[in-house]
This record gives sequence, C-alpha cells and structure tokens, in this order.
Amino acid sequence: MKFCSQCGSNAVTFSIPKGDDRPRHLCSNCGAIHYINPRVIVGVLPYLNDRVMLCKRAIEPRQGLWTLPAGFMENGESSEEGALRESWEEARASIRVDGLYSVYDIPYINQVYLMYRGELTDTNFAPGPESLEVELFREEDVPWPEIAFPIMHKTLKHYFEDSKQGRYQLHRGVISRKLKL
Amino acid sequence: MKFCSQCGSNAVTFSIPKGDDRPRHLCSNCGAIHYINPRVIVGVLPYLNDRVMLCKRAIEPRQGLWTLPAGFMENGESSEEGALRESWEEARASIRVDGLYSVYDIPYINQVYLMYRGELTDTNFAPGPESLEVELFREEDVPWPEIAFPIMHKTLKHYFEDSKQGRYQLHRGVISRKLKL
Repeated sequence: MKFCSQCGSNAVTFSIPKGDDRPRHLCSNCGAIHYINPRVIVGVLPYLNDRVMLCKRAIEPRQGLWTLPAGFMENGESSEEGALRESWEEARASIRVDGLYSVYDIPYINQVYLMYRGELTDTNFAPGPESLEVELFREEDVPWPEIAFPIMHKTLKHYFEDSKQGRYQLHRGVISRKLKL
Repeated sequence: MKFCSQCGSNAVTFSIPKGDDRPRHLCSNCGAIHYINPRVIVGVLPYLNDRVMLCKRAIEPRQGLWTLPAGFMENGESSEEGALRESWEEARASIRVDGLYSVYDIPYINQVYLMYRGELTDTNFAPGPESLEVELFREEDVPWPEIAFPIMHKTLKHYFEDSKQGRYQLHRGVISRKLKL
C-alpha cells in the first residue's frame, strides 16, 4: 500500500498502531489503519459415480495443470454459493452439494480453502474462460503429477480413500511452505 | 475507498472491470483494481467438564453482552492458531483444541466464522483488555438472552445438544439478515 485510500496521502507506514501488537498499514496523515486479512477460496470436488471432474487451467498460476473448480469468495455470497459459482464459471458444471468436505489453511499465502463435495447433476459441463479442458477421471486415470495445487491433491486423495470406506468426513489441515530441496 | 492505494489518485470509481461480472473499486488513473473480499473470524468454544467459558464484552459492538472468544483471523497464521490467539487475548485461556466445530457464513456482513471446540487446560483464565468478565457456565446458567451474536448462540446450542448425544459433529450454516418486524 503506497497511498492512503481514505485521504490520498503518501504518508503510509507499516508500523504497530497504539494498542495493537503487529504492524499495519498506518496513515500518519489521517490516522486510518488499513487491515489486510486472509482471503477465502471456495470450491467443489464434483463427482459422478466413480469419477471426479477436473479442469485444466487456462490461466496462470499453473496454466496447463489440472485442478478442482475454485476461486476467491466474493462479498455478499455464502461459501457454498461461491463454490457453485466457481464451478459454473470454470466448468459450466451443475452440482448438487453434499456438504463441506475440506478446510485447509495456507498461512504463508494468507488463504483459507473451503472445499465442498457435490454430485454432478448432468454431464453438460464445458470449459469456461479460465479452463482449457474439463474432464471426468477415475482414480487411476487422474493426472496426479499434473495437479496444480497441493490442497487439491490432498482433497482428491481424501476423496478416493473415503469412497473406498463409503464414508465421507471433513478433512482439515495446514499446508506449510514447500521446502526447497 | 476514496483514493487509489497504488497511485493516490481520487479517480476511483465503483464499476465493472472489463472481463469481470461485478463492480470493483477501479482506478481510472492507473488501472488498479482493488478487490474487497469476505473476512474470516476465528474462535473457540472452550469447555471444562459440563461448563463452557464465555466472555462479557468490554467493547462495541454489543458491549456488556456475552460471547465466545473470537476475532479476525490475521495474515500468517492458521485458523486454529488464530482461534487460540483470540482465546488468549480475550480470556487468557489455555486450550487444547479438539477440532473444527462450526462453520457459518454471514453473507450480509461479508464474514465467515470458523469456530473450534477445545478443552480448557486449567482455570487460570481472566479478562483480557476486550473483556469485562470471563466465566464458566452450565447450560442452565448461560445468560441466553444476553448472548452477543446469533452465530455464538447457535454454536452454544449445538454444543449442549451434542454433549447430550456424546457425539460432536461439524455444524455448518448461513446466517441471514434479521428481518425487521
């Protein structure tokens, strides 16, 4: 943040406000404190019988790799509405949601993922503007090395394990920065 | 948003960027798009035997009413870390977390609540700067009409019901704007 969005001054410092315990973007002209908080990513694991739906990304990051439909939650919507919106935008998919399926924190990029599980109500899916392809995959056909994000890899692995048990439970975890080896 | 935080211009409009489907704070001077997304509130339902811990709010909103410790999730922390931080800040409470317990969307104020359930590890709790009192309550002693927020009321009700069943499950829902009658 270079300028204060309240007063337009460039006197914005990153320092600890009185009574606080961590630095914030603080305007020394008008006194405004600009909080920056984690963002929520909402998405769906769409399935049909023994297959899951994946989208090949048309955009960066990870263009050309496969992912579950997901994106930033918007103001004014519930997380489930946002998850369904993203599924429509990225894959033109119609889904009946079963429930919340995974909750992952990724503190190093300030994100919280809320992934729902839901059954496709038809097979009229098709790539939206952010996808190159949309396809259904059985477990053995999933392009595992080409899954775009660790959170999606984990959610898919949990899903196929739970499917074998016939019992779907909420999965929760924290994804830490990948060690550079 | 009155001024662009990138360039300091006051030419910020609330209009739909090209390729988007909803209005954003858009700077017509430098082209920056300023996204505003929902915020996450993290908290804990702390219990000890058959009692739960509540805090009497020292600050607005709902000053003087009772709530579970919770607050805005910060960048760089996991939701569980944030929940424990808030429990310490508001109640000096030490807690061993059992798991995620309730996930509530409140779309009309652009908030997502992630509430954990956890056992107090001792009774050395005490009011932090945002609390007037911190106390343990049995179900029949909870000041139900003085609970500060509907999400906390719901989470407490679920907890006492689940306690009777001896089985704690994740609760999820959406809280809609209260109808003005």
